[in-house]
Amino acid sequence: MKTKHKKNNAPFTNSELIIYGRHAVLAALSNPKRKISKLLCTAENLAEATRIGRISPQVVEKRELDKLLGESAVHQGWTAFAQRLDDWSLDDLLAAAENTAECHILILDQVTDPQNIGAIIRTAVAFDTLALVVQDKNSPCESGAMDKAAAGMIEHLPIVRAVNLARAIERLKEAGFWIIGMDGYAKLTPSELKKGGKTAIVMGSEGKGMRRLIEESCDIAVRLPISAKVESLNVGIAAAIALYEINRK
Amino acid sequence: MKTKHKKNNAPFTNSELIIYGRHAVLAALSNPKRKISKLLCTAENLAEATRIGRISPQVVEKRELDKLLGESAVHQGWTAFAQRLDDWSLDDLLAAAENTAECHILILDQVTDPQNIGAIIRTAVAFDTLALVVQDKNSPCESGAMDKAAAGMIEHLPIVRAVNLARAIERLKEAGFWIIGMDGYAKLTPSELKKGGKTAIVMGSEGKGMRRLIEESCDIAVRLPISAKVESLNVGIAAAIALYEINRK
Repeated sequence: MKTKHKKNNAPFTNSELIIYGRHAVLAALSNPKRKISKLLCTAENLAEATRIGRISPQVVEKRELDKLLGESAVHQGWTAFAQRLDDWSLDDLLAAAENTAECHILILDQVTDPQNIGAIIRTAVAFDTLALVVQDKNSPCESGAMDKAAAGMIEHLPIVRAVNLARAIERLKEAGFWIIGMDGYAKLTPSELKKGGKTAIVMGSEGKGMRRLIEESCDIAVRLPISAKVESLNVGIAAAIALYEINRK
Repeated sequence: MKTKHKKNNAPFTNSELIIYGRHAVLAALSNPKRKISKLLCTAENLAEATRIGRISPQVVEKRELDKLLGESAVHQGWTAFAQRLDDWSLDDLLAAAENTAECHILILDQVTDPQNIGAIIRTAVAFDTLALVVQDKNSPCESGAMDKAAAGMIEHLPIVRAVNLARAIERLKEAGFWIIGMDGYAKLTPSELKKGGKTAIVMGSEGKGMRRLIEESCDIAVRLPISAKVESLNVGIAAAIALYEINRK
């Protein structure tokens, strides 16, 4: 497969990206649904890269990867040229949820930092989240930085990019999902919540929270009990605690 | 006060550092125990910096701060030259704990990344942690990057730098602390824990966990229940969930 790529770290087409970092690249290589066109590694990783056998690795110098990815990218001698994973449609999500009595999903409204989203993806997989739903327009596409922060876990979490998030929430409600908005000013704390069934946790951005329309579409608002000294939790931390709590048996 | 500083971001003496970022600098300014020798801000922050009134701000260009701190530091036009906060001794911690029936502390073994530590400090304050204990030799000193990640919350969390962490744990036990080691291979999950009294949560490094000696000195080992797809949680996420759980009423 021929890929024409620019010198900078920008994706070459809409569906292509460079994955870097040991966990991210190894996870991509073990995902049969992930199309990979090229695998670059440094000499010390050659034996391992060859053993995987999915695609022949090309050995490169560390500084070539530094140049390709930028100095700040912690690539650990692993880089793959790949296609973005296919998104799920909302119908895919609803079909997957139909076959289960109990499941939870995560909805992000206005969370725009790829590293925050990547870290949230890693935690979401850890707590058996069925899928992630974001608003297409405001949400960054899959990127190397996002995949690095997700430590390979993006291979395990279907993502729905909804054109209209409020409408997607309405459809989730119709399908029996209980929509829980995380809101620093809410009265209820997570431990007071009824567990079980199908639930969706909605997180807004740090500081600003959810947009009004999204907030109003939630069935219930819940806050994490934190000290008055602290304005808010990091969004990745708040999401982790909410997912942990919803996944508790 | 005369300070001689190098061009790079390294501290000038052992006790001096440059704090940057809006939350970190504003929190430092409101902490009477924090000695500050110089406050630099960009023009758009001048009114706010003047209003605080603790020290006269000097207006600088954004690019001067970029040069001082390095391009990757997100300073938001706020920088302060300050002294590191005084550590607590273990005796200080034990004295503070003596006056309370219920409290919890966090012990970090081998966690070396300043940003992880900063993020953990922010969460620890959110969940009313009494103090943080680290091993002096392996643990980075307070730095601008740590304070930035802590979003100002380092002003609210006493830190004990123990010369010998295992011995510190023994003394904590003698003082009635119940020592809980977080360990991915443990059998118990946090919700099975007895709450109340004085507790210490011990976290090891991501991947490697605690050192054997530290692990053996814990009263109990607890794991967070995570999917088999995920090797481990980020240490900041794991600490947040443990602190949330221990702080739950």
